[in-house]
Amino acid sequence: MEKILIIHGPNLNMLGKRETGVYGTATLDEINEAVRGIAEELCVEVTIFQSNSEGAIIDRIQDAAGRYDAVVINPGGYTHTSVAIRDAVAAASVPTVEVHMSNVYSREEFRHYSYISPVAVGQISGFGINSYLLGLRAAVEIVRREK
Amino acid sequence: MEKILIIHGPNLNMLGKRETGVYGTATLDEINEAVRGIAEELCVEVTIFQSNSEGAIIDRIQDAAGRYDAVVINPGGYTHTSVAIRDAVAAASVPTVEVHMSNVYSREEFRHYSYISPVAVGQISGFGINSYLLGLRAAVEIVRREK
Amino acid sequence: MEKILIIHGPNLNMLGKRETGVYGTATLDEINEAVRGIAEELCVEVTIFQSNSEGAIIDRIQDAAGRYDAVVINPGGYTHTSVAIRDAVAAASVPTVEVHMSNVYSREEFRHYSYISPVAVGQISGFGINSYLLGLRAAVEIVRREK
Amino acid sequence: MEKILIIHGPNLNMLGKRETGVYGTATLDEINEAVRGIAEELCVEVTIFQSNSEGAIIDRIQDAAGRYDAVVINPGGYTHTSVAIRDAVAAASVPTVEVHMSNVYSREEFRHYSYISPVAVGQISGFGINSYLLGLRAAVEIVRREK
Amino acid sequence: MEKILIIHGPNLNMLGKRETGVYGTATLDEINEAVRGIAEELCVEVTIFQSNSEGAIIDRIQDAAGRYDAVVINPGGYTHTSVAIRDAVAAASVPTVEVHMSNVYSREEFRHYSYISPVAVGQISGFGINSYLLGLRAAVEIVRREK
Amino acid sequence: MEKILIIHGPNLNMLGKRETGVYGTATLDEINEAVRGIAEELCVEVTIFQSNSEGAIIDRIQDAAGRYDAVVINPGGYTHTSVAIRDAVAAASVPTVEVHMSNVYSREEFRHYSYISPVAVGQISGFGINSYLLGLRAAVEIVRREK
Amino acid sequence: MEKILIIHGPNLNMLGKRETGVYGTATLDEINEAVRGIAEELCVEVTIFQSNSEGAIIDRIQDAAGRYDAVVINPGGYTHTSVAIRDAVAAASVPTVEVHMSNVYSREEFRHYSYISPVAVGQISGFGINSYLLGLRAAVEIVRREK
Amino acid sequence: MEKILIIHGPNLNMLGKRETGVYGTATLDEINEAVRGIAEELCVEVTIFQSNSEGAIIDRIQDAAGRYDAVVINPGGYTHTSVAIRDAVAAASVPTVEVHMSNVYSREEFRHYSYISPVAVGQISGFGINSYLLGLRAAVEIVRREK
Amino acid sequence: MEKILIIHGPNLNMLGKRETGVYGTATLDEINEAVRGIAEELCVEVTIFQSNSEGAIIDRIQDAAGRYDAVVINPGGYTHTSVAIRDAVAAASVPTVEVHMSNVYSREEFRHYSYISPVAVGQISGFGINSYLLGLRAAVEIVRREK
Amino acid sequence: MEKILIIHGPNLNMLGKRETGVYGTATLDEINEAVRGIAEELCVEVTIFQSNSEGAIIDRIQDAAGRYDAVVINPGGYTHTSVAIRDAVAAASVPTVEVHMSNVYSREEFRHYSYISPVAVGQISGFGINSYLLGLRAAVEIVRREK
Amino acid sequence: MEKILIIHGPNLNMLGKRETGVYGTATLDEINEAVRGIAEELCVEVTIFQSNSEGAIIDRIQDAAGRYDAVVINPGGYTHTSVAIRDAVAAASVPTVEVHMSNVYSREEFRHYSYISPVAVGQISGFGINSYLLGLRAAVEIVRREK
Amino acid sequence: MEKILIIHGPNLNMLGKRETGVYGTATLDEINEAVRGIAEELCVEVTIFQSNSEGAIIDRIQDAAGRYDAVVINPGGYTHTSVAIRDAVAAASVPTVEVHMSNVYSREEFRHYSYISPVAVGQISGFGINSYLLGLRAAVEIVRREK
Repeated sequence: MEKILIIHGPNLNMLGKRETGVYGTATLDEINEAVRGIAEELCVEVTIFQSNSEGAIIDRIQDAAGRYDAVVINPGGYTHTSVAIRDAVAAASVPTVEVHMSNVYSREEFRHYSYISPVAVGQISGFGINSYLLGLRAAVEIVRREK
Repeated sequence: MEKILIIHGPNLNMLGKRETGVYGTATLDEINEAVRGIAEELCVEVTIFQSNSEGAIIDRIQDAAGRYDAVVINPGGYTHTSVAIRDAVAAASVPTVEVHMSNVYSREEFRHYSYISPVAVGQISGFGINSYLLGLRAAVEIVRREK
Repeated sequence: MEKILIIHGPNLNMLGKRETGVYGTATLDEINEAVRGIAEELCVEVTIFQSNSEGAIIDRIQDAAGRYDAVVINPGGYTHTSVAIRDAVAAASVPTVEVHMSNVYSREEFRHYSYISPVAVGQISGFGINSYLLGLRAAVEIVRREK
Repeated sequence: MEKILIIHGPNLNMLGKRETGVYGTATLDEINEAVRGIAEELCVEVTIFQSNSEGAIIDRIQDAAGRYDAVVINPGGYTHTSVAIRDAVAAASVPTVEVHMSNVYSREEFRHYSYISPVAVGQISGFGINSYLLGLRAAVEIVRREK
Repeated sequence: MEKILIIHGPNLNMLGKRETGVYGTATLDEINEAVRGIAEELCVEVTIFQSNSEGAIIDRIQDAAGRYDAVVINPGGYTHTSVAIRDAVAAASVPTVEVHMSNVYSREEFRHYSYISPVAVGQISGFGINSYLLGLRAAVEIVRREK
Repeated sequence: MEKILIIHGPNLNMLGKRETGVYGTATLDEINEAVRGIAEELCVEVTIFQSNSEGAIIDRIQDAAGRYDAVVINPGGYTHTSVAIRDAVAAASVPTVEVHMSNVYSREEFRHYSYISPVAVGQISGFGINSYLLGLRAAVEIVRREK
Repeated sequence: MEKILIIHGPNLNMLGKRETGVYGTATLDEINEAVRGIAEELCVEVTIFQSNSEGAIIDRIQDAAGRYDAVVINPGGYTHTSVAIRDAVAAASVPTVEVHMSNVYSREEFRHYSYISPVAVGQISGFGINSYLLGLRAAVEIVRREK
Repeated sequence: MEKILIIHGPNLNMLGKRETGVYGTATLDEINEAVRGIAEELCVEVTIFQSNSEGAIIDRIQDAAGRYDAVVINPGGYTHTSVAIRDAVAAASVPTVEVHMSNVYSREEFRHYSYISPVAVGQISGFGINSYLLGLRAAVEIVRREK
Repeated sequence: MEKILIIHGPNLNMLGKRETGVYGTATLDEINEAVRGIAEELCVEVTIFQSNSEGAIIDRIQDAAGRYDAVVINPGGYTHTSVAIRDAVAAASVPTVEVHMSNVYSREEFRHYSYISPVAVGQISGFGINSYLLGLRAAVEIVRREK
Repeated sequence: MEKILIIHGPNLNMLGKRETGVYGTATLDEINEAVRGIAEELCVEVTIFQSNSEGAIIDRIQDAAGRYDAVVINPGGYTHTSVAIRDAVAAASVPTVEVHMSNVYSREEFRHYSYISPVAVGQISGFGINSYLLGLRAAVEIVRREK
Repeated sequence: MEKILIIHGPNLNMLGKRETGVYGTATLDEINEAVRGIAEELCVEVTIFQSNSEGAIIDRIQDAAGRYDAVVINPGGYTHTSVAIRDAVAAASVPTVEVHMSNVYSREEFRHYSYISPVAVGQISGFGINSYLLGLRAAVEIVRREK
Repeated sequence: MEKILIIHGPNLNMLGKRETGVYGTATLDEINEAVRGIAEELCVEVTIFQSNSEGAIIDRIQDAAGRYDAVVINPGGYTHTSVAIRDAVAAASVPTVEVHMSNVYSREEFRHYSYISPVAVGQISGFGINSYLLGLRAAVEIVRREK
């Protein structure tokens, strides 16, 4: 059974409680429940992790090598500023899928550049909760195709 | 039964025949077959269109209003240069999902900017054929959620 | 009797059907009718052409040399991306007036640059249907002054 | 009877006396006469003002609120440098039409950006004296349409 | 008793009469009254000056040397375009506090750069009328600390 | 009694011990004492927090919602690099005042841009310790005005 | 006998009829005749194609694979704007030589960048008709060297 | 006897009283005296004018046509921001020499660009009072050579 | 005996386990051993610290003042993004040597700028493990020269 | 008999000895032999010069005026950095053809700009040795056409 | 008697022989004669040097220290590209005056930046031969004032 | 015994005689003596070369191939402007170490970019004389490791 690590970056613990106009009304718990539902359907095991700390996210990505078959990450605000997370993803040699709930390309200019994108397998953005579910499907497909 | 229009932009008719190192060995026919398979699974009807002509793609997008519930488009090289396709998408008022087979963010600088992204619902890139399949799922989800 | 060619670029066939908040509720037919009204008042003959295709617009501009006394063009989305239309205008040696219905300078950054402006006689933008009518007046004035 | 304020910015008092290759041989008095002619034809009352001083132009624009139905302004060199005139136009809540005699887009790079354009209703440039006449027509049309 | 010069730049005489959504409903007179109230509380004497003219503002700043202990200035639109006011502030050798009623950093890009900021002691922006009152407090504190 | 959270960002614990030419000789304890003095004068309760960790600052801002009436933050070096803190401020829906002791606009180019400014209510910079005191006054004023 | 495809991009059908100061007085027919003369001398077969349509040019390039040994293309205005033609050239895997009649580097800034150059074998520009003849020689040499 | 107009821009009336480290200790009166001394030596008549107002400087330049043989101008802070003064110089058709007392190229970045330079005959900067004296010599030489 | 603090930034704990093509096969332990060997040879005492957390690295740098004679730091990905670490280095007043194992100037554009370089004494990059050993030598030399 | 000067810039003496993957295996002597072969075929006399020194190349270009009918130059690395060679070419009034063996547009960004191109008649790049031979043909054609 | 070194940079030996429309018809010998005439009038000794070689110019500037009281240099094309000449001027500690015959600010963009200007005492450009004569006067004045 | 070539670029012959605040008081002879001391300690043979001429430095680098095991170069001002020296280093296939005495990253913006860095093995800057000594150590280490 494949193992997938889901990483939620900074401020995603506030989902459903903050700017619901931009991010929708679903809470992080509801998202995680939906993720687990799809995981069951796809017969994979998911581990879910959230942190506001760049260092803690790096620790977790490093840790994924050998333990997980793929990573699905929403790097939040660190998407646009963290070379260190990028380096961790590049080093981890675990296929990584980058997801965003909102359509980052219709927001502020500084959200258009992602340090993570060039080292991820692919990106999915703009579909709300569904970005996570599609990201999980994409990750599973990558893992199974490579076998 | 929902109706989805799939648009393949310029040079995608060459898939499987060209630069297979970048785009994989699947031909456009094989992709379309896979798309039709998922469509059946999701119980939606898909129409598929390919053209190398910017004007023909605009004609088709304009035509989609009222006839299709959503559009899934891979605008190919026009992604980065066509304000006219962007305007057509914005005007069509049909929810549109942008897909790319390759990870455009690990390619040349000029492929990082998309005129389509800010007016699409969301983007999916980097998953090969699967970008289309995930894009179709995303489109169907959007249509059904809005009902 | 002077002859003026009116060219409507991509997506202008959707006027009145799309984003009426930006472009108003008049359809292209209503605009053309208003244009013909002013033409009659000014005693000139107008020919009207619309296309979504860059190549077809270039064909038409090339064709204008010797057949028309002036061109009034709303290049739509091609305004900001088409060196080829610019070259056609420069080559045609028919005085050309550029018009836009919306105020392009209060919209997205990429709409502020026009490839056509430096080779046109002048520009008119922001007055809705009236941009066409003023453009026609300007064109007629140029033609009559040069005689 | 509608009242329109015509504002000529810096150096326009030199028209016909300076660089006639760029601006033509008409003097400011001749332009004003032509403007008054059209005003009579359109049954509106025009007041004409010229100043080389940014502050005096701002004073006059502020003063227009409630006294004039529209403003037609050729901001001359202040077009490209004056945030303060822009703020005055935005604050005045009198519809404003920006005009230029020369085609600013075929001149130096720094003349391509206008601080006034985004807060004006529309722009007309490149038609010599006729830019003023078309601008007056545009202004009258706006005022009458809004009634 | 310390003497403070308050300078209001262009268009600030329109406060309360213009764009009240951005600047609030207080008029310049009401602001000046509030400023005088705080001045009394802080036991300082204030002189208040408003002008739309860059030259007049420079004259007044030059004049401040030796007559005032500090200047509080809201340079309005000249903030972003006037090297000459900057030079006057730098030359005056009177400590100067820059204030803005609106949060200039959440407005247009061109309002983010201030020629005055690098030669002022400090800046306060975004607090409406209170920007002036805090600016006056800051100025008084600077003057008294230096004694 | 209103509750205000004061956040000191990275390296501010070194105040008075480091580069006293730039930041003055007051230690963080002395600043906090002065802040508490003003708080008493204004009849508000202040909580003070310092951290060198971006994640810890985000945790604290998230935590402020519902517990504090306003935040006064000096984000230190994170001002110019942290989208994640910006997102936390935007999400917290607690009015936030940004303060800096030094005049950031007379320092290095990269200190001129603040990710926080556009989502804060206002900014105060350049007044040394007094930046905090004015910031606290501004925060209290905002809270009381909104009631 | 080697087969070479010659592609003339937009507006080149106007040669000799337009801006003869920039492009010379030779018509496209005269150029084609000269090209056929050199082809005979070099013992190769040439096919000549002109179109104003980006899509039609892409169709023709795709079609060249397997049918022609090399392509000589003057992409005209599409040189500077067409990612789609670039992608077609890259996909066609037929060696391609880019030619321009005028010296593009002594013209407007936007003509200095070519999307085609990085995927062509080489470029020749500035020699009028001779650019085509030298381009044909270069293409033949490449084909024969590779055998 | 040739007539030369000397124009001192904004803040130059403060010379010798302000930032003497940058501009030296000579007052404007002393400079003017030195200028008059050289004028006598060169047998020309000089008129000297100083203003802090952009509009007043433009008025004076316009007025110079036909009355003066040359202009020597130190545009001060308006050097870097005034298109309107540039237009006045270009329109005046009186040869104009631009002078600066300080070496503007070893000062802030924004002082490196001059709107006046491209329309002046030449520039002299960095020689303190002597910049004026050399500028006067240059102007006289130009006038006499042209006769 | 001099004391030197060696700081390894984010992801350096993965050395020898990740991208060995770029960083070589030596593990962090092996590097530390080599560093200790040189330390012994140079008769200095080294303390070694690694963290993925920006805040923890700042804490450690602050702590170095008075306890260590010099710092040798490889800031990893934080090199290019951390103003806060730069401020800590500038504040610490302990001479700091910046080292990189790979040649950052032959890698991605965003790795060419270092926030740390301007406040470090010097930089060494591109020599693999030897970058650390040379950095330690440089640090010791600085300390001993200053005595 | 026409005389053509061939100039090889810096490092071209290393051809065939260096980076043969980029520049091919032909040595400069072999290139010169091929050049002489074509010269004989075209009945022109060639003089060949190589130098690593910018000054020596300028001396030689200056010297060409009146002695040679045309120059073929491969400016090597000076292409992208030498205004002085550009000025020499512009001053020499001998028609000059710029050649490059590699396709400079598929190499580093800084190789895309040439100071020489705007003052040369035309450019040829990407055809290896053949770039020189085509360049010689182009030069001869220019000389003969002008007679 | 003061000693002044005059340095003419690359291509200035071609004066009067090249582009006389830009640089006038005077030859370098005639300029040098005029320079010697003024030198005599001013009672200084001048040494004149011309070279096309950057290295030779640097050698000569280094050599000037202690032997000459000032340098007048026209760095020609090296003005815009030579950090090495700048460093030589900065190191020489001999006051240096930069002169240009043409008005570099009305020429190509790349001629607007001078590496020499920030380390020279001042600049004079646009006055033809007279630029040298004014430059010599400026240099003598600087030397005599400093005594 | 390994052979190392030490190259000193332009103006380094002035060391100890010029700007000693920036570069220290050691003369080039003293540096060379120190270099020879370390060479003896490391049992390698060093050859030392200085020139102000770009061409001469290129000649010497070309010459190094096959004669030296490594090069240590301080390219001085040519660091930031010479593509030709970069090409020579790349072609020489002798491992090259770039050194700078001053910390180039705390100096002017234009000194932050090095054309040499991407083709050198590594860089060392900021340690005064010691930069050379560390550079020699680095070079020897590279040579010995590769054996």
